[in-house]
Amino acid sequence: MPSLSPYRSDLDYAYAPGMFPAMECLLHRPDLARRVLLHTKSAGTEGAARLTELAAKLHVRVEEADRALARISGKENCFAAAVFEKFDDPLNDARPHVVLHNPSDCGNVGTILRTSLGFGVEDVALIRPCVDVFDPRVVRASMGSMFQLRIHTYNTFEEYEADHPGHMLYPFMLDGSKSLPEVLAGDIPERWTLVFGNEGSGLPAAFSKKGQPVRIPSNERIDSLNLSIAAAIGVYEFTRK
Amino acid sequence: MPSLSPYRSDLDYAYAPGMFPAMECLLHRPDLARRVLLHTKSAGTEGAARLTELAAKLHVRVEEADRALARISGKENCFAAAVFEKFDDPLNDARPHVVLHNPSDCGNVGTILRTSLGFGVEDVALIRPCVDVFDPRVVRASMGSMFQLRIHTYNTFEEYEADHPGHMLYPFMLDGSKSLPEVLAGDIPERWTLVFGNEGSGLPAAFSKKGQPVRIPSNERIDSLNLSIAAAIGVYEFTRK
Repeated sequence: MPSLSPYRSDLDYAYAPGMFPAMECLLHRPDLARRVLLHTKSAGTEGAARLTELAAKLHVRVEEADRALARISGKENCFAAAVFEKFDDPLNDARPHVVLHNPSDCGNVGTILRTSLGFGVEDVALIRPCVDVFDPRVVRASMGSMFQLRIHTYNTFEEYEADHPGHMLYPFMLDGSKSLPEVLAGDIPERWTLVFGNEGSGLPAAFSKKGQPVRIPSNERIDSLNLSIAAAIGVYEFTRK
Repeated sequence: MPSLSPYRSDLDYAYAPGMFPAMECLLHRPDLARRVLLHTKSAGTEGAARLTELAAKLHVRVEEADRALARISGKENCFAAAVFEKFDDPLNDARPHVVLHNPSDCGNVGTILRTSLGFGVEDVALIRPCVDVFDPRVVRASMGSMFQLRIHTYNTFEEYEADHPGHMLYPFMLDGSKSLPEVLAGDIPERWTLVFGNEGSGLPAAFSKKGQPVRIPSNERIDSLNLSIAAAIGVYEFTRK
């Protein structure tokens, strides 16, 4: 592999910046790991020792790369990163899904991946245009949880629907025809899909005719909830059922 | 007022960057508004027209300040800001509270303010050391919701307890002795306080002896939930009761 570039969408590899995300990559997707980068300042830390040990076991090369780490992460205090091959998995059709339609904020997407895994939703789709799920800011905000998920990016929502016609859709909309508690009081099929729209514009109006639109009962004093917050409340409640 | 500095904690004024946060300041705390700053690029937009009209009604000065906006927000595309006097309110002792113990991330704090208001919790305390609640990154992430809240920063948690001895404490901890659904199945007094710890280290162990510690039932596949996500789930569930 040549010298490491700052992250670009057209590369076939990406970076998991941070001790914890790098470790998650080695633990859960060792097949994807190409290299581990360590900062000289990490020498002697427990995290660096654990990463080095696991990398040796997996025959993954470890190198000191202070400048590459700063370039990749845009931070001076990034002590480690894993370099990994990008992946794209089909979603498991038998399981519930989260679909993010045109999300534009890396932090939100990463946080939603982390929350989804934490409540046992292992399948997440993104619909273009959207952030690049391998942007290091997504990987970092996900705390490496993406290495335990199936993630697929679709060009259109119609492609998602065509792949998973048996899923009941629950689009989250400010004017959803039922509130979340009303929806949860009824029957929820085993295969459900929670759909969340863009941070600024939400879901297109056409989604009000898909499945069962849901509104989270917040008051009128705020414009809307943050996207990652709305998704967390939806995923928590649906997985509690 | 002299020329505008980049934000500093020791100033007696702060900035609400962005059209929406600036508008929220004028709408809800006109008593605090000192000036409105507009970018020349905002000329002709509906947002700028509404801000200018309201400012005129309130006798708040409006000025074009492209360079000040870039300096304040650290962004090139910040089209408006309100300059406002800092405030510090006693919490309403008759109402439920959210307490953030040593939060270190501005985005998390702002998002929690927004979520709290959205579910009707109007009183939020921060415990030092913590981010400055008037940091423009907090104000922006709050989407200006802070102008509808009572917010007080305490030096210690003991000071908070001394001010509000009638509140039942619910510290959110990874090893909380009851799960959130268990806690909600029991009686919740009218005056409750949800307490959330630092992003990295959570709450000190001593909180396990305060009130009723609560754990959110996420699985073992993630280290923890993001702070703003945990707070959102807690606030949503407690306010639904």
